[in-house]
Amino acid sequence: MKTVTVAIVGFGTVGSGVARILLESGETVAARAGVRLKLKYVCDTELARDRGVKVPAELLTNDLDRVLADPEVTVVCELVGGTTTAYDVVERCLRAGKDVVTANKALLAERGEPLVKLARELGKAICFEAAVAGGLPLILAVRDGLVANRITGLTGILNGTSNYILTSMTKQGTSYKKALAEAQAKGYAEADPTLDVSGGDSAHKLTVLARLAFDVPARFEDVHCEGIQKIEAADVRYAAELNYTIKLLAIGRRGADGGVSLRVHPAFVPRSNPLAHVDGPFNAVMVRGDETGDTLYYGAGAGQRPTASAVVADLVDVALGRAEITFAARDIFSIAGKGTVQSIDDVPSRYYLRFDVVDQPGVLSRITGVLGAHHISIASVLQHEPVEATSVPLMIMTHLAVERDMRVALKEFAGLDVVHNRPVCIRVLDEERSR
Amino acid sequence: MKTVTVAIVGFGTVGSGVARILLESGETVAARAGVRLKLKYVCDTELARDRGVKVPAELLTNDLDRVLADPEVTVVCELVGGTTTAYDVVERCLRAGKDVVTANKALLAERGEPLVKLARELGKAICFEAAVAGGLPLILAVRDGLVANRITGLTGILNGTSNYILTSMTKQGTSYKKALAEAQAKGYAEADPTLDVSGGDSAHKLTVLARLAFDVPARFEDVHCEGIQKIEAADVRYAAELNYTIKLLAIGRRGADGGVSLRVHPAFVPRSNPLAHVDGPFNAVMVRGDETGDTLYYGAGAGQRPTASAVVADLVDVALGRAEITFAARDIFSIAGKGTVQSIDDVPSRYYLRFDVVDQPGVLSRITGVLGAHHISIASVLQHEPVEATSVPLMIMTHLAVERDMRVALKEFAGLDVVHNRPVCIRVLDEERSR
Repeated sequence: MKTVTVAIVGFGTVGSGVARILLESGETVAARAGVRLKLKYVCDTELARDRGVKVPAELLTNDLDRVLADPEVTVVCELVGGTTTAYDVVERCLRAGKDVVTANKALLAERGEPLVKLARELGKAICFEAAVAGGLPLILAVRDGLVANRITGLTGILNGTSNYILTSMTKQGTSYKKALAEAQAKGYAEADPTLDVSGGDSAHKLTVLARLAFDVPARFEDVHCEGIQKIEAADVRYAAELNYTIKLLAIGRRGADGGVSLRVHPAFVPRSNPLAHVDGPFNAVMVRGDETGDTLYYGAGAGQRPTASAVVADLVDVALGRAEITFAARDIFSIAGKGTVQSIDDVPSRYYLRFDVVDQPGVLSRITGVLGAHHISIASVLQHEPVEATSVPLMIMTHLAVERDMRVALKEFAGLDVVHNRPVCIRVLDEERSR
Repeated sequence: MKTVTVAIVGFGTVGSGVARILLESGETVAARAGVRLKLKYVCDTELARDRGVKVPAELLTNDLDRVLADPEVTVVCELVGGTTTAYDVVERCLRAGKDVVTANKALLAERGEPLVKLARELGKAICFEAAVAGGLPLILAVRDGLVANRITGLTGILNGTSNYILTSMTKQGTSYKKALAEAQAKGYAEADPTLDVSGGDSAHKLTVLARLAFDVPARFEDVHCEGIQKIEAADVRYAAELNYTIKLLAIGRRGADGGVSLRVHPAFVPRSNPLAHVDGPFNAVMVRGDETGDTLYYGAGAGQRPTASAVVADLVDVALGRAEITFAARDIFSIAGKGTVQSIDDVPSRYYLRFDVVDQPGVLSRITGVLGAHHISIASVLQHEPVEATSVPLMIMTHLAVERDMRVALKEFAGLDVVHNRPVCIRVLDEERSR
């Protein structure tokens, strides 16, 4: 059996997970994989801290140059994280003639293009299964399994932290603040949860997926991004009443004209859609292909073991010699992609609107008048008994409307004296059915 | 761009789907795949019938020898079906030096071993993504995506016809007979539906999956197989009342001792399990790995376009040169697999039992007495008001019990004068939770 020598750079959560699999299950993985992965280096600037895995001292090094200079090492796992040091590590590994496996979605989304270009020039591969949806082999499915398809849509729950928080809010009726605190206490959210709850992490992943699926050289900045921080318990409750669940979705769509729209935002998901039932820290992605129709992938999107599993799968692909073939033959990062990303202004969506209105005659007519003036037609209306004497909650679900029109309408609502506060506006996932 | 020349043998539903993709979308698939697939032959004994795809006359042939003798053809799609002619076609293709792509689960499950052995001896590949769960890239996920995992469980809905029928029974409360007739009218069931409704088709697929996932040289006969023909409307209704849905499941489990159990049978699936919500003609498979935990794959498991999509994905894998690498390095069909398949007698399961009992005192005690005597403990009991004066439905859900014990208990029930008819006995999917 062939043996391929591997180095890990970045001895954090994922790095120690990969080290554990290679050191503790090396022989069983080799028996399945048909190739042996020999771990020769674990490289980090800090090596003293206990990571819960026993790595022989002679494997540990803080000297990246030593790793790069060793011709026996043909593949390096970049598990440093971030977009600065990690960039340098990947660049140097490629220039030293090594293939790279990475779990770094931020790096790929923000600075991936020059690295992938360089890898292709040098005949090397950059594998990134672990960068999107952790333990789910989603990159593999979209890249190889669905290769005969023109992908027209991606709809996913790509951030476990946000989904955990929204699930708590839905099941327990708690506020965002309480649910976040609970998620932090249980280790599902970091002390600074910004990247997760703002949608940034989902947008990183969507950027990478879009390049793979849509033949579009998408940049991170092209993704319209809204987080879950402003979701209120009341809206979670009204969603349930209307037979929806609020989820943070990453959505990519290929329009009829070939333009691609990319967005991350909270959305009302109809209960009839399987994504509405993805609870807790899990990920799920619905991929629409013109031949297969909808396929759905569900599982643990993060965590040490699922992510390490994806890194090792990529290592096997490299070690068998398949990854370089794929990378050389195919433009999987859309370096030469011709698609363009649409502005959010032009994207049609359905909307949920919640108003706090004055309890007096004529209010509904004034509000619906504004919508009508901007070509936004109403699908349903829900009005509840007054919460306070002076304030009535009024919920409106619209049919498809273009973002630009909705923005103008929202501005006009602000000028109406019958509406308290700014209305809440959350998009609704449109149920375009599979053929 | 490299060009690889392809032949299709078997111009049926799937064959014409593959021909359509290669002829009508050839260039767009090539742009994605990084390799061009040139269709040179469509071979069948009957060529006159219109298949809804325009195949140039010079491609059509009824002469397999011509295809085999053409050195330009390096890969052949076996889409003949069945286990006799198809066997000969695959054998002859391999001996003629061609890789093979097949959608034929029956062939693989019943006679796959000698063919895979031959392919390995000759350095050729047999690819079979399309044989299991059609448009879902399930083989790819289990083979490559989860390669770092020891797979401990597979639980799937692998037959769209049966699932369509059970869904109709559940949603409309109809009988099996009516639901089958409706499925036939809509084209979801064949005139002779036996292979689908008996569980045979699911068992074929489970055999193939088990070889891939469990390192066990499973034979079709090793799969304990029961169909859905005896499911009654009453049991579908009681399942709903108890918060379950009846599904035809294919289940593979690796026991603590390494033994593997393989079975296909109807089962009560708890509503909390995503498989309970897979409706209509769709497939879904839950795969449990020791690193990833549970991952779920959902989509169209059959049909011309999804299945053709899977065949083309395999053609790309062959054309890029990856399939031969995988096939040579890895024993993906467990030819040398050391696992053994357990007898169903030793498999533990939960059970749903429905009795028609006499309406008199002491009945429940006599029935539960039999269960107790055979170490079968009761999880819950549901008794309804009498349907007829002399007959009362009594439902018992058990805890885990071994099949052998349940069989003996069922025999003893037959001897009780307080029980009318044979009790209905349906297994319950145990909710072993992901770690």
